[in-house]
Amino acid sequence: MDTLDIDDPALENARAVLRAQPFSALLGARLTAFGDGRAVLELDIRDELRQQYGVLHGGVLGYAADNALTFAAGTSAGTDLITAGYTIDYLKPADGVLLRADAQVVRAGRTRVVCRCDLATVDAEGTETLVAVAQGSVSVGNRTR
Amino acid sequence: MDTLDIDDPALENARAVLRAQPFSALLGARLTAFGDGRAVLELDIRDELRQQYGVLHGGVLGYAADNALTFAAGTSAGTDLITAGYTIDYLKPADGVLLRADAQVVRAGRTRVVCRCDLATVDAEGTETLVAVAQGSVSVGNRTR
Amino acid sequence: MDTLDIDDPALENARAVLRAQPFSALLGARLTAFGDGRAVLELDIRDELRQQYGVLHGGVLGYAADNALTFAAGTSAGTDLITAGYTIDYLKPADGVLLRADAQVVRAGRTRVVCRCDLATVDAEGTETLVAVAQGSVSVGNRTR
Amino acid sequence: MDTLDIDDPALENARAVLRAQPFSALLGARLTAFGDGRAVLELDIRDELRQQYGVLHGGVLGYAADNALTFAAGTSAGTDLITAGYTIDYLKPADGVLLRADAQVVRAGRTRVVCRCDLATVDAEGTETLVAVAQGSVSVGNRTR
Repeated sequence: MDTLDIDDPALENARAVLRAQPFSALLGARLTAFGDGRAVLELDIRDELRQQYGVLHGGVLGYAADNALTFAAGTSAGTDLITAGYTIDYLKPADGVLLRADAQVVRAGRTRVVCRCDLATVDAEGTETLVAVAQGSVSVGNRTR
Repeated sequence: MDTLDIDDPALENARAVLRAQPFSALLGARLTAFGDGRAVLELDIRDELRQQYGVLHGGVLGYAADNALTFAAGTSAGTDLITAGYTIDYLKPADGVLLRADAQVVRAGRTRVVCRCDLATVDAEGTETLVAVAQGSVSVGNRTR
Repeated sequence: MDTLDIDDPALENARAVLRAQPFSALLGARLTAFGDGRAVLELDIRDELRQQYGVLHGGVLGYAADNALTFAAGTSAGTDLITAGYTIDYLKPADGVLLRADAQVVRAGRTRVVCRCDLATVDAEGTETLVAVAQGSVSVGNRTR
Repeated sequence: MDTLDIDDPALENARAVLRAQPFSALLGARLTAFGDGRAVLELDIRDELRQQYGVLHGGVLGYAADNALTFAAGTSAGTDLITAGYTIDYLKPADGVLLRADAQVVRAGRTRVVCRCDLATVDAEGTETLVAVAQGSVSVGNRTR
């Protein structure tokens, strides 16, 4: 996949940030888009990420929403960011082979960026199912609150 | 720790549910209280759970809030529950040796339980720091939506 | 305006519900679209609806989000609805001549409908400005919780 | 009521701010406590504030949560505040003679104050019923975003 966007230094920089997050490595997250107010984060659904009914644990969806929202904010506001908070509403049990969190900036203010995120699973046939939606805000220039 | 509450079958049952969640095992979560509208979930802070600045990843806090809220709801509403959604506001960078998510039922309705959760870290000296607060709702009797 | 959609009984029924809400009458709200998972609620911005800095009070935005979300849910789930809750993020001070809350169903489940809402002001020249975004859920078949 | 706290200049100043909000005057809101990280806002329940089933409109609860959260933030962060957003979960239909929104600061950071709010109705016998809970954040030093 990297060969396709070898000329995109912003995506490469964002991937370096993601690699520097041990928790993202533990979950197996990767960035597949980063730019123009949008970030897409994906991870393979594996058994370790499930809950007791066999579907993806909500905590994985929360992680993906949180991180995708913050990376989306980073497309317009640089790297001195801290996630302020978010809301997530679950829509359906999440299963399949892939989780995709697609986050968009709604408004990038000087000190706060508000984003939305759609969380979808993809099954083995490539069918996407929207499983959760989130909305959150990211503080700018404020890492040491 | 289990020896202290060997006579608490509700806590033991809740721990069996938690053990049946592979993602909770991956994160190392344990229940230290369960009953009377309250659930406390704890996990040891280890390097795999951090983000790029060395503090606990927000996704771990989101996981802990989500799971503690749902277990708290389970103290009054049984096991046929599904988390509907939650909001989390981060307060401070989270570091220390332990994360504790302490969730309380605010109101247990027939079809929906609303809870709040305080997330605190504990350092090596035992000092607690409130690092995030959450509020969420859990649907009852609704697992197969 | 009513003459344009005199053949739309669903919109007329929804308007009758809105007229039955004294608080909506106090604020001067009207429905301009209702159907296909979408509801649009508008109100004229007048001095009584402002806060101390001269812009629209956040409480008016919250009202509009809440009501538009619930009407949007009503397009797919009938009238036995109760708003469960919502999140709103303010983006900009809200001013102009008109407030428009445009809500869409994200997913209509059997017992819960999740919606998003965009809140925009319109100035005297017709320019729209997005001033807040909301996300909320509505319980179905549950008015007597 | 004012005679009881005539020596509390902080409460008097906060009341002056509330009086400067035309929307708060329209709804009949008053501040009954302001200080030490807490603000209490009350309003009499009257027919104009109801929805179609005869109970208080959710928009009134949203207004009260929003304003109480922001005033609570003002107890620790001064007057250069702007509400960033909030989440509200409704618990029960709201009826009675009085609505009381009791908001507390959870954490006052340098640029952001996070608060929680309990919304209760009081009936003619003085019985309080918790009808909604909210959590929100207020930006400091940022009115002109």
